[in-house]
Amino acid sequence: MNVGEVCTREVYIVRPDEPLLQAVHEMRKRNVGCVVAVETRAKKVVPAGILTDRDIVRTLPEKADALRTLLVADCMTRNPLCLREDESIVDAIARLRQRGVRRAPVTAADGDLVGIVSTDDLLGIIAEQLSSLARLVEQQTRKPRMAPNRPAPDSAPMSGGSDL
Amino acid sequence: MNVGEVCTREVYIVRPDEPLLQAVHEMRKRNVGCVVAVETRAKKVVPAGILTDRDIVRTLPEKADALRTLLVADCMTRNPLCLREDESIVDAIARLRQRGVRRAPVTAADGDLVGIVSTDDLLGIIAEQLSSLARLVEQQTRKPRMAPNRPAPDSAPMSGGSDL
Amino acid sequence: MNVGEVCTREVYIVRPDEPLLQAVHEMRKRNVGCVVAVETRAKKVVPAGILTDRDIVRTLPEKADALRTLLVADCMTRNPLCLREDESIVDAIARLRQRGVRRAPVTAADGDLVGIVSTDDLLGIIAEQLSSLARLVEQQTRKPRMAPNRPAPDSAPMSGGSDL
Amino acid sequence: MNVGEVCTREVYIVRPDEPLLQAVHEMRKRNVGCVVAVETRAKKVVPAGILTDRDIVRTLPEKADALRTLLVADCMTRNPLCLREDESIVDAIARLRQRGVRRAPVTAADGDLVGIVSTDDLLGIIAEQLSSLARLVEQQTRKPRMAPNRPAPDSAPMSGGSDL
Repeated sequence: MNVGEVCTREVYIVRPDEPLLQAVHEMRKRNVGCVVAVETRAKKVVPAGILTDRDIVRTLPEKADALRTLLVADCMTRNPLCLREDESIVDAIARLRQRGVRRAPVTAADGDLVGIVSTDDLLGIIAEQLSSLARLVEQQTRKPRMAPNRPAPDSAPMSGGSDL
Repeated sequence: MNVGEVCTREVYIVRPDEPLLQAVHEMRKRNVGCVVAVETRAKKVVPAGILTDRDIVRTLPEKADALRTLLVADCMTRNPLCLREDESIVDAIARLRQRGVRRAPVTAADGDLVGIVSTDDLLGIIAEQLSSLARLVEQQTRKPRMAPNRPAPDSAPMSGGSDL
Repeated sequence: MNVGEVCTREVYIVRPDEPLLQAVHEMRKRNVGCVVAVETRAKKVVPAGILTDRDIVRTLPEKADALRTLLVADCMTRNPLCLREDESIVDAIARLRQRGVRRAPVTAADGDLVGIVSTDDLLGIIAEQLSSLARLVEQQTRKPRMAPNRPAPDSAPMSGGSDL
Repeated sequence: MNVGEVCTREVYIVRPDEPLLQAVHEMRKRNVGCVVAVETRAKKVVPAGILTDRDIVRTLPEKADALRTLLVADCMTRNPLCLREDESIVDAIARLRQRGVRRAPVTAADGDLVGIVSTDDLLGIIAEQLSSLARLVEQQTRKPRMAPNRPAPDSAPMSGGSDL
């Protein structure tokens, strides 16, 4: 199981030089709290930054009066951690922890953006694995179970006719 | 969530003074790897021991020729850890770890046997909680998602008509 | 394990009638993405709303020019789901799912705010339970293990001197 | 993460034609509930069967008087599910479920036995992943948290000097 199998392929993208409020409008319309700011290099779409609700709110106290003039680039986190689609889940979690972030753009080997992965996606896949394991164990335990042989304490014979 | 809500109520019981092979026959018929040996005290069914596949196999090298004469009491683990049905899952796991066992009879406050709980049951309940949490998180993330706005890198305009 | 044992007790509070930018400033200073808006009723601090990064960003497109005049009440989600500190984890997850939210203020029986609980807190406690269970199972499996008896395929005798 | 990274390399092996009691003796000495019965083919050690506590106990009612004459082959489960060391965890769980078994010998691409994998091993690795994810999420949430600003309800000013 690698990052490419787990990540969300529907990633919303913006350009660093577009107005922040235009990106915010897009985020609201799509109901996402995060978009990837991309540049085009050698016909590839390459992540240049990541823009989250938190990034935007952090900017507000200083920039409240200049909101209409801000660009995505003024607000986004540059040089975001990018994960490769062929990285393992385990490595992905380790690298997210190292950088202290909950999500990262996912790229192909050539740097082209292919998706975004978040702790939510990772939780989903781990929960699925655990459920599958739990069902395996339960099927083992329960499958052939018949009615119990639990008697009333002061009455009936049980296995083999012996009294309790 | 406490032990009583998680445990298996269909526990198979034997008596310490019944022939081991009779208990083994019952275990095979029921397809279980574990039965609880019980005594009746003051009209209550009280665990006196626990008998597992492992207990039986461990006895074989010495007792291979005396199998027909063995009683459950000769083979069972006495004074088994018993968990109370009102104990929390967390406490139950801690006490199982402390004793180094994977399963324990479950009793009511008055000592009466009500079920058996194993690491398999605990895995089941934890997996259920995690799945429920994962679905909550996923519903949050995905619910209102529309089609992505990801363009071909060298072609189309995206949010707001700006070229990439 | 109930909500009171899992929730974060350090909850940041604001008043519905304070300026939004003042709350935003506080959120940045505390590095939190969520505060609880409270009212005082009968000497109790009672949740009146919840204010998140997302709530704030959603307001921006329309209110970009009026940011300095907005109050917390203009932006917050009113009548938030509140969880009782004596609710079980399982019930808490179910109620969060039903409302489609990731976090909720936690109150005492009398309605007084005592904390906030999020899917992050719940993940933490479930992961802890699963780790504890995994260590129990591992201790069972591995504890008394000695060196393996795996021989080279074409050479040595193994258990009992029989050749492979 | 694949089966080879998760499996237990110390697998205990027996031969199909060795006396059952000799294998039982070895199982007790090693404190394992399962051994792999192997044959040598083209200088490779190849699984021919799997022998568990349960297999042995199931045989007892009929064979109690012939225990000393039984061979491993009389008791073992033949043609066991074997997993390849390069299979993914997800596939491994699926195949174990399909066969309804909790453990399987693990082989190299050429069929040579390299280990054994059980639901216990799989639980261990999933629990590790979940813990790692929980720590990532917690580090995000808690890291920069300062003292709370929760005031006494009827007293002090809070963020920005406003009374509650």
